[in-house]
Amino acid sequence: MSNTIGKFFTFTSFGESHGKAIGGVIDGCPPGIEIDETFIQNELNRRRPGQSNISTPRKEEDKVEFLSGIFEGKSTGAPIAFVIWNENQRSADYNHLKDVYRPSHADFTYQQKYGIRDYRGGGRSSARETAARVAAGAIAKLGLRKIGIQINAFTSQVGHIAMNKTYEQIDFSLIESNSIRCPEPETAEKMIAYIQQLKDEGDSIGGIITCVVKGVPIGWGEPIFDKLQSRLAQAMLSINATHGFDYGKGFEGVALRGSQMNDEFVKDGDKITTRTNNSGGIQGGISNGQDIYFRVLFKPVATISKKQNTVDIHAQEVELEARGRHDPCVLPRAIPIVEAMTALTLMDLSLMKI
Amino acid sequence: MSNTIGKFFTFTSFGESHGKAIGGVIDGCPPGIEIDETFIQNELNRRRPGQSNISTPRKEEDKVEFLSGIFEGKSTGAPIAFVIWNENQRSADYNHLKDVYRPSHADFTYQQKYGIRDYRGGGRSSARETAARVAAGAIAKLGLRKIGIQINAFTSQVGHIAMNKTYEQIDFSLIESNSIRCPEPETAEKMIAYIQQLKDEGDSIGGIITCVVKGVPIGWGEPIFDKLQSRLAQAMLSINATHGFDYGKGFEGVALRGSQMNDEFVKDGDKITTRTNNSGGIQGGISNGQDIYFRVLFKPVATISKKQNTVDIHAQEVELEARGRHDPCVLPRAIPIVEAMTALTLMDLSLMKI
Amino acid sequence: MSNTIGKFFTFTSFGESHGKAIGGVIDGCPPGIEIDETFIQNELNRRRPGQSNISTPRKEEDKVEFLSGIFEGKSTGAPIAFVIWNENQRSADYNHLKDVYRPSHADFTYQQKYGIRDYRGGGRSSARETAARVAAGAIAKLGLRKIGIQINAFTSQVGHIAMNKTYEQIDFSLIESNSIRCPEPETAEKMIAYIQQLKDEGDSIGGIITCVVKGVPIGWGEPIFDKLQSRLAQAMLSINATHGFDYGKGFEGVALRGSQMNDEFVKDGDKITTRTNNSGGIQGGISNGQDIYFRVLFKPVATISKKQNTVDIHAQEVELEARGRHDPCVLPRAIPIVEAMTALTLMDLSLMKI
Amino acid sequence: MSNTIGKFFTFTSFGESHGKAIGGVIDGCPPGIEIDETFIQNELNRRRPGQSNISTPRKEEDKVEFLSGIFEGKSTGAPIAFVIWNENQRSADYNHLKDVYRPSHADFTYQQKYGIRDYRGGGRSSARETAARVAAGAIAKLGLRKIGIQINAFTSQVGHIAMNKTYEQIDFSLIESNSIRCPEPETAEKMIAYIQQLKDEGDSIGGIITCVVKGVPIGWGEPIFDKLQSRLAQAMLSINATHGFDYGKGFEGVALRGSQMNDEFVKDGDKITTRTNNSGGIQGGISNGQDIYFRVLFKPVATISKKQNTVDIHAQEVELEARGRHDPCVLPRAIPIVEAMTALTLMDLSLMKI
Repeated sequence: MSNTIGKFFTFTSFGESHGKAIGGVIDGCPPGIEIDETFIQNELNRRRPGQSNISTPRKEEDKVEFLSGIFEGKSTGAPIAFVIWNENQRSADYNHLKDVYRPSHADFTYQQKYGIRDYRGGGRSSARETAARVAAGAIAKLGLRKIGIQINAFTSQVGHIAMNKTYEQIDFSLIESNSIRCPEPETAEKMIAYIQQLKDEGDSIGGIITCVVKGVPIGWGEPIFDKLQSRLAQAMLSINATHGFDYGKGFEGVALRGSQMNDEFVKDGDKITTRTNNSGGIQGGISNGQDIYFRVLFKPVATISKKQNTVDIHAQEVELEARGRHDPCVLPRAIPIVEAMTALTLMDLSLMKI
Repeated sequence: MSNTIGKFFTFTSFGESHGKAIGGVIDGCPPGIEIDETFIQNELNRRRPGQSNISTPRKEEDKVEFLSGIFEGKSTGAPIAFVIWNENQRSADYNHLKDVYRPSHADFTYQQKYGIRDYRGGGRSSARETAARVAAGAIAKLGLRKIGIQINAFTSQVGHIAMNKTYEQIDFSLIESNSIRCPEPETAEKMIAYIQQLKDEGDSIGGIITCVVKGVPIGWGEPIFDKLQSRLAQAMLSINATHGFDYGKGFEGVALRGSQMNDEFVKDGDKITTRTNNSGGIQGGISNGQDIYFRVLFKPVATISKKQNTVDIHAQEVELEARGRHDPCVLPRAIPIVEAMTALTLMDLSLMKI
Repeated sequence: MSNTIGKFFTFTSFGESHGKAIGGVIDGCPPGIEIDETFIQNELNRRRPGQSNISTPRKEEDKVEFLSGIFEGKSTGAPIAFVIWNENQRSADYNHLKDVYRPSHADFTYQQKYGIRDYRGGGRSSARETAARVAAGAIAKLGLRKIGIQINAFTSQVGHIAMNKTYEQIDFSLIESNSIRCPEPETAEKMIAYIQQLKDEGDSIGGIITCVVKGVPIGWGEPIFDKLQSRLAQAMLSINATHGFDYGKGFEGVALRGSQMNDEFVKDGDKITTRTNNSGGIQGGISNGQDIYFRVLFKPVATISKKQNTVDIHAQEVELEARGRHDPCVLPRAIPIVEAMTALTLMDLSLMKI
Repeated sequence: MSNTIGKFFTFTSFGESHGKAIGGVIDGCPPGIEIDETFIQNELNRRRPGQSNISTPRKEEDKVEFLSGIFEGKSTGAPIAFVIWNENQRSADYNHLKDVYRPSHADFTYQQKYGIRDYRGGGRSSARETAARVAAGAIAKLGLRKIGIQINAFTSQVGHIAMNKTYEQIDFSLIESNSIRCPEPETAEKMIAYIQQLKDEGDSIGGIITCVVKGVPIGWGEPIFDKLQSRLAQAMLSINATHGFDYGKGFEGVALRGSQMNDEFVKDGDKITTRTNNSGGIQGGISNGQDIYFRVLFKPVATISKKQNTVDIHAQEVELEARGRHDPCVLPRAIPIVEAMTALTLMDLSLMKI
């Protein structure tokens, strides 16, 4: 269970990596939103494998097909169902993994929990599932865009290589200018070189994605348990391979004192704003009108080409060498996923603020 | 809305800092659990103010009174309601704050969202609300204890002062041996001295709480959106003043490669276990039988004695000097809260694994 | 579990008949509603026992005490918790029932389901729980009243004695003019005489309550599964002793043809209305602006003074004669409960229509 | 919103009558259930139009295609998504209805609520949506069948023509022996003749479906708001054209006294059972191990061939004569829908009883 997220704008995800299709159903989408299919497809293309030589060469069209909820190009308030047909699966690549518990994958826990699992391509636990999130998130983005909300995520750190600029200093238009999606070009180059090196070594690396949301009105986020940061954290930690979340100054600001951290209120013409934004746009779990920014930590991809020791379902110790196609670093493809989960979360909270 | 957490084992929280009472209702508690009221009161005492000279001198009895759901000392399956009566409120202390938006507090966002707020002692946004969580969490702990689950949180960092040992190296019995609840006595001393210094300066400081859970069976956590780490993150980020969450190696392990991060499966007699536990006991969102460990970041307390500039509800710029009683550092009192939210989360997921 | 109803405007109920208190928590109440405590108390008084010689002589003050969510007489958007303290319980009256499964009561099913139960006064399954619903429903009524919605329920049938008039023909102001709450005085007299006769015989009787809601705007009710009639039916069938629900023409109109049943649309000045209202104000699960009317069937009170055969928890056959104080007919006291559940349902749906 | 039913075994429905497809997603299906596709298809065939001369001649294959959640013929615990492609839509039949509010249809309320609607074939409000419920319900039936639960619905009344036998007296194997699905052959003949007559007159008729469930264990149904009868009522009233629900003796037993209605407990060997079953197998909202039986009232089909007066979206009065293909009586095709909704409800409650 628990394949649905959201309370009013809900998204239900379905599908396995090598089954017939993945897809989803959005329920609670307000009527009258123009469903720009080109935009949605473009979001899926950003997540698609095979975009550069630092991502997997697997080819997936990831063409989304809408089944319901749209009439004459607009949402009707009825559930929007869509499918993305699976193609180019090479399930035979996974036959040798049928019985093996790959280290730091979900094979073991799924098998123990359910007693049965579709092992092909990771089945339900595959990150392929996130394509459905990107499609749904794109619809949420269309809804948010109508009221001026912009979501931009980018790679801010790969392994030990981190950006120097803060989010206020960067030019978002540079994000898509390189294959790692880091808006600091000289740092991007180092990141890419490092990933290439690890790929050659048959290894993998993780890093950090920073996400910035501009234009969220004051008042989104529900006390006590649907605080804006609670819901963002839940959404982010539901993405495959994520291991951490912080917002505002975050872990890097742990040494700041109250007098340094507090955001004083000031007048800006008729409006009330804050002098600083160390809180990341959220106070008491509710948006305060400032930019919302947060970071999401991704661990290195668990699939590596290096030889590993492990155990199979017959409790025999075995050696494992990955043969499937995989990414040495998920970050560039994870960026549209982080944005999508952000959009789904905000869209839901927007309907709770009534 | 959104004052309820959990799907099977649900907890609904109510009450304001200076209202008649705070309290809560647990629904979905399995029948037959012995409700050890001494244990529950002891958990509340750990959160209570006035325990040491590094916490607020405010006196609250925090005596819990159960109203329903318990018969002859045991849970019956009916909802367990409880209240903690408010006493010793000094609402007059807050009269001068009636119209002021305190920096980095929820005054501004609540006022904007609801158009009305109980300003006394922070009202609904006060951390006093967490006493109800501790009471509810204590009941969850009683349920988890029956199946051998132990939850231990401790202060691992205050400002720049961090523990040296990893969680595997520490002696949990030392946690309660000092007022900061850090199981590394020499580090605890430094932390306490630092907090005392900041208190004298009228300032405040944040830090990190680490939580370790032992004994969780394999199979808890629900794909896709109720992954164990998703639910823990949501629960932790719902605690007042939290700004971050990570589990397993977390942000500190960002530079690790896949070959270093992966937890190889090994045989341990008849059981399958992992050689390392960099994943923090969770794979694919599901517990794998290893220790679960995670960190929670707390920002410095927003209430400080230093003079601050801010704005009031009439959009007038004003100066603010806090006069209420407050903690210079929330960490020691937040430890039972982190444990309580962990227990509530696990109890809920335990019932979803059926 | 499942002691909460509603999705946006939620009500959580707690308490046992002979425990310390019953009560509830409303979450999602919009801010700014004037909480008229006199009105709320009056609603509770309508449900209170001891109002006439056809209801139980048990005395309960049923004084509601609000604990949270109200500030300076208005709702704040925070959860509204309240308790109604139990008094005048005569638990000793129930000692002889401790081990007995009373016919058509919940003793047997609770014991089998939970393995433990508070047998005193029926514990959690007692209709005393509905006092909390009336208090919560009164708050919902206050919210609905602001937008001109009026809810009126009345006794339309007792046993075989039915009203003659349709709801359009009656004068609602007569409802409270007699102890059975039937707005047809001559029928009311017959009903009361019949109930008195059954009371003297140690027997009991059921009947039908009709509820009429005026002023619901067009558009409330959510396809597919939260249709207005679905939610009303769920709410009504959750009331103790109810056995049926219909709306519009209902079961009595089963022989009508499509050409007789259909409500043709007509113009009424600028507005579109319907010539007839056989649909009971609901089409496609959504309110159409006409009066909503429905009926709720109550079975006879299970507690009777006549001797009955039954079985106890030791599987011994025993004879049972009720000694507690009980009503021969629940209908007059159930009227505020039907209205309360209607109000809770409508308030919730009003917030889903956004 | 609200296109999902259930809390643990959830079913989300999507699709419009003349869109690409209808379908659904089941989440929370326990792993290891054999998904017998022949059985599922057979259930869909029972609902399919064109089965006899008293139903619409429209031809729909209603072939279900599963997309996920099934591996090697068994459920895996992952969401089961399926589609039923729409074919043989004759949308042109509906062009003349584009702007017309058909009497007692959902055209008016959908248009007012959403401001946009897919008018073709009734769009989202069409009973075609129920095909998805039948497919999902068939999976629930497979799960229930494993533990010996049998669900049988049948037509017990058409207009004024009612069966004579009680449910205990009938032979369920006769249900499928005639086109109205009434297990009393001589009554079935009268019903069919009456429907044929009304069809010839261009009119329609409603009636009552009775449903009997055998084999439900003691203990299903959750106090207070998910009582078994509450959930059944909600489920039944969510079916298109339903107007009433009762269980046990129901409305027909309104004149019974407590001493006649009460079900005395008796011993049956080692087991405790009841002498009578007037309660319909439910006490205190919880199954007591006896047969569960209830009735569902259907109004006459709103689409009739007779001329009707109505209004269009431009607020012009117009005359309407239906030209689409439609049923004169929905009852025979509604039987698998009633069974499906019963199965979905029971499957969900089975997982709440833990």
